[in-house]
Amino acid sequence: MAALVERELRQSIPSPWAIPEPLRESMMYSLMAGGKRLRPILVLAAAEALGGSPEAAVPAALAVEMIHTYSLIHDDLPAMDNDDFRRGKPTNHKVYGEAMAILAGDALLTHAFFSVVQSARKHNIPADRVIDIVEELSRLSGAPGMVGGQAADMLGEQGVTKLEELEYIHLHKTSDLIVFSLKAGGRIAGAAEAQLAALERFGTCLGLAFQIQDDVLDLIGDESKLGKPVQSDVKQQKVTYPYFIGIEASIAKVGELTREAKEAILAADFPQPERLLELADYLMKRDH
Amino acid sequence: MAALVERELRQSIPSPWAIPEPLRESMMYSLMAGGKRLRPILVLAAAEALGGSPEAAVPAALAVEMIHTYSLIHDDLPAMDNDDFRRGKPTNHKVYGEAMAILAGDALLTHAFFSVVQSARKHNIPADRVIDIVEELSRLSGAPGMVGGQAADMLGEQGVTKLEELEYIHLHKTSDLIVFSLKAGGRIAGAAEAQLAALERFGTCLGLAFQIQDDVLDLIGDESKLGKPVQSDVKQQKVTYPYFIGIEASIAKVGELTREAKEAILAADFPQPERLLELADYLMKRDH
Repeated sequence: MAALVERELRQSIPSPWAIPEPLRESMMYSLMAGGKRLRPILVLAAAEALGGSPEAAVPAALAVEMIHTYSLIHDDLPAMDNDDFRRGKPTNHKVYGEAMAILAGDALLTHAFFSVVQSARKHNIPADRVIDIVEELSRLSGAPGMVGGQAADMLGEQGVTKLEELEYIHLHKTSDLIVFSLKAGGRIAGAAEAQLAALERFGTCLGLAFQIQDDVLDLIGDESKLGKPVQSDVKQQKVTYPYFIGIEASIAKVGELTREAKEAILAADFPQPERLLELADYLMKRDH
Repeated sequence: MAALVERELRQSIPSPWAIPEPLRESMMYSLMAGGKRLRPILVLAAAEALGGSPEAAVPAALAVEMIHTYSLIHDDLPAMDNDDFRRGKPTNHKVYGEAMAILAGDALLTHAFFSVVQSARKHNIPADRVIDIVEELSRLSGAPGMVGGQAADMLGEQGVTKLEELEYIHLHKTSDLIVFSLKAGGRIAGAAEAQLAALERFGTCLGLAFQIQDDVLDLIGDESKLGKPVQSDVKQQKVTYPYFIGIEASIAKVGELTREAKEAILAADFPQPERLLELADYLMKRDH
């Protein structure tokens, strides 16, 4: 599925469009910079779980990767996390300058909505279902979702974060876009309400587990596998799950959340849930 | 119509949403900072021209003002135009810091798509018409539209702009969002293809006239009426219409474009085109 995502991402900006070349390059630089492609794969896997065609879910899968990519570009800016490298490559603003990086992020964010609409255009997904997906994308990636999580994270670093505030940050910064991915794939394949609720539960647990695992790997992971320096949270005085409850309890929490996620899927009636369940296990066991 | 827009903008972020307070404040600070509200008024006026209810066009009107506002916030950032004041008030990043200003811009951009979808939800606009509006908003405000215009403007300042490149900049940086506004209002009121084409022609001419008028006012306008220093384009070595063809020819061009815009509307079959025509005249005669 990752290969399909790579191929489609490469063609995701219509080539006849007249776009200033440095802007197009800057967008594609970050969009094609690799990574696990977790979110688009979750879109396709959720459609597959319902017995739907992954093809029809591709536009929504590309959309969520565009949102994820824009958030990384803006996050890396000097005014935000001020990161010079990501996945071993110079960050967008180090290559194209800050102004172009801001614009490339804005353009990718905007283009995500164009991509979602292509579900209706190319794959005959009913318009009202696409409207639901647009609404959910704007909510879960916007102020009450991912951007709200980023803002809380930034404010939290300044001092007074409690465990419940950390949960708010993880829930919105990470889980919301994962929940969107799963429900969008589900909606495209015609999921019933109970199935959408199960996908939401699965995504919320998975997103939280994913984030706690990130925190744990930052403490005890292998730098060469992670492709980034460890202990960065400690150095930046970031509050994390291990900071509050310790490493062992954090590892146990990842296991619990993964079980809870899989149970939500198993309790609902999915014809082909295998890949979703495998993804949950893979994420729990990952070392990078 | 401006009063309706102000009132609705104030309520445009659902109050039950859990959003970090500084993010909500930063979004509202710029959204409620005044201005002509030209774009939302054009949405409503286009719906009215077709005999449609302006009420149903309100969600799209708010959306376009959110897009316009986010573009100003990001434009004012130190990495872009580095402006400390806008409309006599400190710019967003001067009040909330750069990181929050970037996030507030991202959140407003994202929220625009939420607002458009409310046309379908609250006003029973058919879903396929709303899909068309979402697609057009993403195209005209994204890489092949407004963001592309911004990028070209930024690159152009660095030296080698020709008149045709300046036209590209004006067309995308300014006209595209005005064209979107008019066609969105038209679509919501059920415009036929010929009427949408007339609105597009009207918007393209009006946007270009608006931008040339801006350039002219920057040279010969009254600082107290404009609320900003004049001659800033010269100081920043920006290329403008007057730079290429002189002030008198620029003023004549504004008049020509305004006539052309009005003719496009008069040639199509609009039951109530009066307000649209008045807006064209008002923009030509404005001194701020």
